[in-house]
Amino acid sequence: MFYHDRRLQYKVRVDKPNPAFAKMLQQAIGGIEGEIRVCLQYLFQAWGSRGPVKYKNMLLETGTEEIGHIEMLATAVALNLEGATNSLKDEIVGSNPVVGAVMGGMDPRHFLSSGLAAMATDSNGVPFNGSWVVGSGNIAADMHANVMAESTGRVLATRLWEATDDHGMKDMLAFLIARDTMHQNQWLAVLEELGGATNNHPIPNSFPQAEENQQFNYSFVTTNIFKDQEAYGRWAEGPSIDGKGTFSMVPGEPMGDIPILPPPAPEGHAQTEQMTGAAGGLMDKIKNAL
Amino acid sequence: MFYHDRRLQYKVRVDKPNPAFAKMLQQAIGGIEGEIRVCLQYLFQAWGSRGPVKYKNMLLETGTEEIGHIEMLATAVALNLEGATNSLKDEIVGSNPVVGAVMGGMDPRHFLSSGLAAMATDSNGVPFNGSWVVGSGNIAADMHANVMAESTGRVLATRLWEATDDHGMKDMLAFLIARDTMHQNQWLAVLEELGGATNNHPIPNSFPQAEENQQFNYSFVTTNIFKDQEAYGRWAEGPSIDGKGTFSMVPGEPMGDIPILPPPAPEGHAQTEQMTGAAGGLMDKIKNAL
Amino acid sequence: MFYHDRRLQYKVRVDKPNPAFAKMLQQAIGGIEGEIRVCLQYLFQAWGSRGPVKYKNMLLETGTEEIGHIEMLATAVALNLEGATNSLKDEIVGSNPVVGAVMGGMDPRHFLSSGLAAMATDSNGVPFNGSWVVGSGNIAADMHANVMAESTGRVLATRLWEATDDHGMKDMLAFLIARDTMHQNQWLAVLEELGGATNNHPIPNSFPQAEENQQFNYSFVTTNIFKDQEAYGRWAEGPSIDGKGTFSMVPGEPMGDIPILPPPAPEGHAQTEQMTGAAGGLMDKIKNAL
Amino acid sequence: MFYHDRRLQYKVRVDKPNPAFAKMLQQAIGGIEGEIRVCLQYLFQAWGSRGPVKYKNMLLETGTEEIGHIEMLATAVALNLEGATNSLKDEIVGSNPVVGAVMGGMDPRHFLSSGLAAMATDSNGVPFNGSWVVGSGNIAADMHANVMAESTGRVLATRLWEATDDHGMKDMLAFLIARDTMHQNQWLAVLEELGGATNNHPIPNSFPQAEENQQFNYSFVTTNIFKDQEAYGRWAEGPSIDGKGTFSMVPGEPMGDIPILPPPAPEGHAQTEQMTGAAGGLMDKIKNAL
Amino acid sequence: MFYHDRRLQYKVRVDKPNPAFAKMLQQAIGGIEGEIRVCLQYLFQAWGSRGPVKYKNMLLETGTEEIGHIEMLATAVALNLEGATNSLKDEIVGSNPVVGAVMGGMDPRHFLSSGLAAMATDSNGVPFNGSWVVGSGNIAADMHANVMAESTGRVLATRLWEATDDHGMKDMLAFLIARDTMHQNQWLAVLEELGGATNNHPIPNSFPQAEENQQFNYSFVTTNIFKDQEAYGRWAEGPSIDGKGTFSMVPGEPMGDIPILPPPAPEGHAQTEQMTGAAGGLMDKIKNAL
Amino acid sequence: MFYHDRRLQYKVRVDKPNPAFAKMLQQAIGGIEGEIRVCLQYLFQAWGSRGPVKYKNMLLETGTEEIGHIEMLATAVALNLEGATNSLKDEIVGSNPVVGAVMGGMDPRHFLSSGLAAMATDSNGVPFNGSWVVGSGNIAADMHANVMAESTGRVLATRLWEATDDHGMKDMLAFLIARDTMHQNQWLAVLEELGGATNNHPIPNSFPQAEENQQFNYSFVTTNIFKDQEAYGRWAEGPSIDGKGTFSMVPGEPMGDIPILPPPAPEGHAQTEQMTGAAGGLMDKIKNAL
Repeated sequence: MFYHDRRLQYKVRVDKPNPAFAKMLQQAIGGIEGEIRVCLQYLFQAWGSRGPVKYKNMLLETGTEEIGHIEMLATAVALNLEGATNSLKDEIVGSNPVVGAVMGGMDPRHFLSSGLAAMATDSNGVPFNGSWVVGSGNIAADMHANVMAESTGRVLATRLWEATDDHGMKDMLAFLIARDTMHQNQWLAVLEELGGATNNHPIPNSFPQAEENQQFNYSFVTTNIFKDQEAYGRWAEGPSIDGKGTFSMVPGEPMGDIPILPPPAPEGHAQTEQMTGAAGGLMDKIKNAL
Repeated sequence: MFYHDRRLQYKVRVDKPNPAFAKMLQQAIGGIEGEIRVCLQYLFQAWGSRGPVKYKNMLLETGTEEIGHIEMLATAVALNLEGATNSLKDEIVGSNPVVGAVMGGMDPRHFLSSGLAAMATDSNGVPFNGSWVVGSGNIAADMHANVMAESTGRVLATRLWEATDDHGMKDMLAFLIARDTMHQNQWLAVLEELGGATNNHPIPNSFPQAEENQQFNYSFVTTNIFKDQEAYGRWAEGPSIDGKGTFSMVPGEPMGDIPILPPPAPEGHAQTEQMTGAAGGLMDKIKNAL
Repeated sequence: MFYHDRRLQYKVRVDKPNPAFAKMLQQAIGGIEGEIRVCLQYLFQAWGSRGPVKYKNMLLETGTEEIGHIEMLATAVALNLEGATNSLKDEIVGSNPVVGAVMGGMDPRHFLSSGLAAMATDSNGVPFNGSWVVGSGNIAADMHANVMAESTGRVLATRLWEATDDHGMKDMLAFLIARDTMHQNQWLAVLEELGGATNNHPIPNSFPQAEENQQFNYSFVTTNIFKDQEAYGRWAEGPSIDGKGTFSMVPGEPMGDIPILPPPAPEGHAQTEQMTGAAGGLMDKIKNAL
Repeated sequence: MFYHDRRLQYKVRVDKPNPAFAKMLQQAIGGIEGEIRVCLQYLFQAWGSRGPVKYKNMLLETGTEEIGHIEMLATAVALNLEGATNSLKDEIVGSNPVVGAVMGGMDPRHFLSSGLAAMATDSNGVPFNGSWVVGSGNIAADMHANVMAESTGRVLATRLWEATDDHGMKDMLAFLIARDTMHQNQWLAVLEELGGATNNHPIPNSFPQAEENQQFNYSFVTTNIFKDQEAYGRWAEGPSIDGKGTFSMVPGEPMGDIPILPPPAPEGHAQTEQMTGAAGGLMDKIKNAL
Repeated sequence: MFYHDRRLQYKVRVDKPNPAFAKMLQQAIGGIEGEIRVCLQYLFQAWGSRGPVKYKNMLLETGTEEIGHIEMLATAVALNLEGATNSLKDEIVGSNPVVGAVMGGMDPRHFLSSGLAAMATDSNGVPFNGSWVVGSGNIAADMHANVMAESTGRVLATRLWEATDDHGMKDMLAFLIARDTMHQNQWLAVLEELGGATNNHPIPNSFPQAEENQQFNYSFVTTNIFKDQEAYGRWAEGPSIDGKGTFSMVPGEPMGDIPILPPPAPEGHAQTEQMTGAAGGLMDKIKNAL
Repeated sequence: MFYHDRRLQYKVRVDKPNPAFAKMLQQAIGGIEGEIRVCLQYLFQAWGSRGPVKYKNMLLETGTEEIGHIEMLATAVALNLEGATNSLKDEIVGSNPVVGAVMGGMDPRHFLSSGLAAMATDSNGVPFNGSWVVGSGNIAADMHANVMAESTGRVLATRLWEATDDHGMKDMLAFLIARDTMHQNQWLAVLEELGGATNNHPIPNSFPQAEENQQFNYSFVTTNIFKDQEAYGRWAEGPSIDGKGTFSMVPGEPMGDIPILPPPAPEGHAQTEQMTGAAGGLMDKIKNAL
């Protein structure tokens, strides 16, 4: 179960409120790279964790920390919206197309829907989507999902850092950027503890690899119509990263047939023209058309 | 630009059509772990690629290959749906609650909407969502997104492999599982070529790390109310994985204040009770309440 | 900021795992009536709270409690999925349409995507959607949103209680039902403290009511083509609930004109037939057609 | 069944077209607080109504009225978009970043997709979502959903009223604000007729309250780590609003165990490291780690 | 504005309630082929109609009729759900995996969320989505959208007709199928009145066709890698349907360059490896890699 | 399976980068009228095609071509974003509301999420949605879906053409507009080859038309409360377009009863007031209320 302290994990200060920056900060709250996603992702991974308990414990720790990050960002959004509507009346009211456009930099729902507060949406007002909460039940896959989340999250935070010179905001972002540094390392540390790439991959490592197709499991397939070598790199020769194969480069070639489906079922009511051949020469016509 | 061959990349054969398995296969088409996602993800990463061209080239190769995987799976869905409606009429028609339930194993839209063909949805009929297509413009973040996609994708494929004993389906899945093995290795190879964890992390490596908060960038923050050590592991001591810090474990403590927002703006029409204090003792009352 | 205890707020015990019930429980996690919604709703309302601090404090308390309810339900889902795949192989594998349908009662993604764990989705696998998190900045509107959430939430919980005879599940649900009782009362208590219906309504009470149309603010408009009295009730006569008007019943009548829009702008490329009249008799033709 | 009159329920006049205001009006059409939602919500509640017919009749009346409100707002959007593209060519064409930004105040899809007409989306272009249409089958829960919808709807309408000084728009909004006043009162009147809070709550009132947990149904649980009294209010002492209990305030305490899930099922292909312990000392290790 | 009659447009009778069929009927309510879509589509097209008023009038007529079709189907869903929960308790309660699966044929939200009534969702419980409401402002494009909607709608209705032998349901569906026949013809009649294919196409017919690329406006481009003639048909030779060109078949060939984007902007924080070349030999390396 | 050539199908050149135009172009990528939709729609129709193989072949050709159109537009977006962030720092940083608004013309996620590259979203940042991919299994319905897609697509492209005077962009759009001309004609050619309107309609033509309601299949139902003739047109008299009936105009009249649903099932926990009548006089009261 969970507890709270009314104080923030780290101080949030806005020197010059900026509603356009409030809109941008929403990406870090309700966007796919944002804090609601990592918060729920780590908590759901913890709650569904099977196997060594230490990982469940750790996921619970960090998932809980992330709730406080949503809180910090939601506070930052509200503070950046202070005074946002002062100009609203004068400007929109005037139906002046230029000043009316000023509103363009603000999320209109920050005024209309939330009354100058954060929402569970991204910087375009697109709502948070639960499909982004990845927990596969395979801990190595999940750790990669987490590294990915913290990598795109840190990229986002550094871009927000570039987009402001408000000292308070830069300080808060510098803290969040630091936490992303730690969390990237943290999930990588689990992968190391689990044996690193040579032990973990191919994920899942519990599937008997002999059952996979042995001809194409370490081949870089090129689909370039000229079949030249321009995509040559580490992935095209030498031992595979998981140490279980040797990379090769092969031209893409069809190994399957042209797939021809049977005529439609009558009760599905395709057009008659799709079915009439069925009781006659359709298959012949099909053959002729190949 | 793109070309096609009417033949499939690999043969698709269904020995015993199974509409419930058709429904499960949809997860590998339109689900977040599925082939539409990786196809569009690699192609969008290629089309937005900046920097060394070899990575763009490679992404284009594999993104193109993935179109053919959607094609294989869509064909497999259609073949598994053959004959699905034979029983429909007798059974549903009878309004027999038991046999009616047989339909439960099939996606009703496979009959109602697509006429026994694949759709751009997951195994619950939830449509594919473009938000899953991740391309951050940072190649290391993107490679982690790709490793993650192929890891959850291979986990999915092995579970589908377990869920069928149709020889044709097992053979097709063994091919797709092999391709996921290659693709996991391929994205890891890029990360290795870019210098491995010590060079890549923290992602983005182009942000001056001196600007991030130096106190919390390698600290595991524990939010456990008892502050005991149960979450101890590789992430809590020793050098960080990126080689730029030393892990420590610190108890979570609030460093910020209790955030109190100013009273609402009048034109936002909060309740009067939220605003009256503003012209009088609200801030006093607030202070008292703290 | 937030803390956790690894123990659950209330015990979660499943006597007989039931994957179909696991699917049904998802509605209470990621559905619109579920716990992710109320958790985020109360927390976002707290973080954006303006005005008396006591309400912010209270929202923070209960929002934090709800995280623990998601945790309980996620645990319940995982426990109900124990053994779910034992039958999978024998049954699906057999391509037997009847037993294959058994899978119909289970969410296929509980096996394919999460590996027998809860997800951030509803009972049909539709992802949680951030648009459900309502915080308007008006405390009375928000309290009504919260009463509504706890009312539909308690209805859901009682239906789940009816759908199981597992003693562990019934006990857990009886706890959650009790918490919903409290939370309904809690939000109603705020509304009472704010002055009850006569003070709160019409929400927002800060809008000068003289500005609203005075002719239709307490009239029940009937759109029944026969204009009879079948919709007669408390809302059609007597003092209004907010004490500021008197209910009346009036027949719906159009007070506006037939809206005719100007011809389309040329650069919008409507069909020529929509525009040609513009430079000639279109408005005449329009008038004739009225 | 339904009929129409080509005239509007109330006059819609725009003195000075303003495409930025057209964008804001979309929130009242396709947003969660908007008219499509209440229209479909009341109609679906009517169509699914069970019990006294008078409520069904009334819901049908008001649901039908709301179709006409969508119509009014859609007309208002189209009128506000008149002339919106006059400046488009000169400005965008010039690739001038400042004037280009003028477009920012307009929804680009109002030009690109609809040709200067309203769409079924909110003010950020996010499509209307059917999940917002709440009808629980419990009339008291539904009435609270309706009060909530009209409360957030009236808050929205007053904010739109503040954001314009167009006389025509202010007049139309004053009408819609008045209708929201009536509708708030109307749903409250049903709740009063059903017996008020003491009879209605806890909703559903048909669940035998003896079956809910008796220890926590009227307790305010505080999760504040300091367990102080800052969240004290009406909800923490005295009789409950439903008259069936007495409020108390209790500190949050875990009553459940630490939930430990069994090892993963083999066919789910977790990593081997999650499973190996299963056939050996994992449970021992787990115990040690607790 | 709108009115209603409490009677249905056509009788709705269910002889043998069938919850699985209730689930299937949802596709015709909230699915992309369903009645909410056409209802809102025709009404939004009417409300945004510019040009000859007769089309606006007609769209308003049929849009209004469709509200009554949603009503009929919502009634049919409720009637099919009668008694659905009688078996629920005995069966689910028993935790019997086979009978538990019976629930699979029913939408669990029909019990859990709506209390045995219709919802604004499709047959998989996916909510109606406002993006399906197409109104382009071009009447010919809109008429094609409408023909398409009524065509997929009639296909759906005939499949539902096949899936039941309930006389009441078959009768209701036979009515709806007939209306779809009329509506297909109705939108085609507008297209005929507007001059038929030769006048309407290419849509929009108001764009000066001389401005489009003259080399590829009537060429069937084949992307088949073998460039053979297997896709030969009416579209590959002879006059074009719009009478303004002559069909030809040409092999797909790239006419553009290999697109190479400049190095990333520094403030976007790509990886250093993507940028370092920029200040040195990257463009050279790029050239070499081509 | 699929192949690629690194060169574009047609040249993409941007003379003056314009981030606001980049945002508008997104509609043609990830919007409902955009290229991802048609690409996946034609490919899914091909992969699910049953009946004459020539149509499958053709769909595969054009679906493959469309991948290259996404590629062209994604390239155009990236080129229009060049330099977009130069002004970002100076301007946003300054918290100047006017220059801050400049950002309003740009999609913030083009900087924050993608690092100046295209995304799988529309011009408001709403993600592509797989529900837009229509393939019904009925070839005539599908061809209408395709004509509609290319009609709204060409309307969109001509509007984009109007919104820019960049020569490169106009040239690219002129190419895409030409392809839409061809594709409209192409799908119409299939419809002609299948026999034209008189053979194709009503779609599906395989449903025995004698089974549909014979009284209302060619009647224009007017819902206008005055029942006047304002909606008179080609659809109201003369032979139907499909040649199988005669248009007539009839006033809308209810032919069904007032639908009264039975009282709620006890386990659904409606309010007691909805159920008590059931064991007494409710049905009487209902009758009285009618």
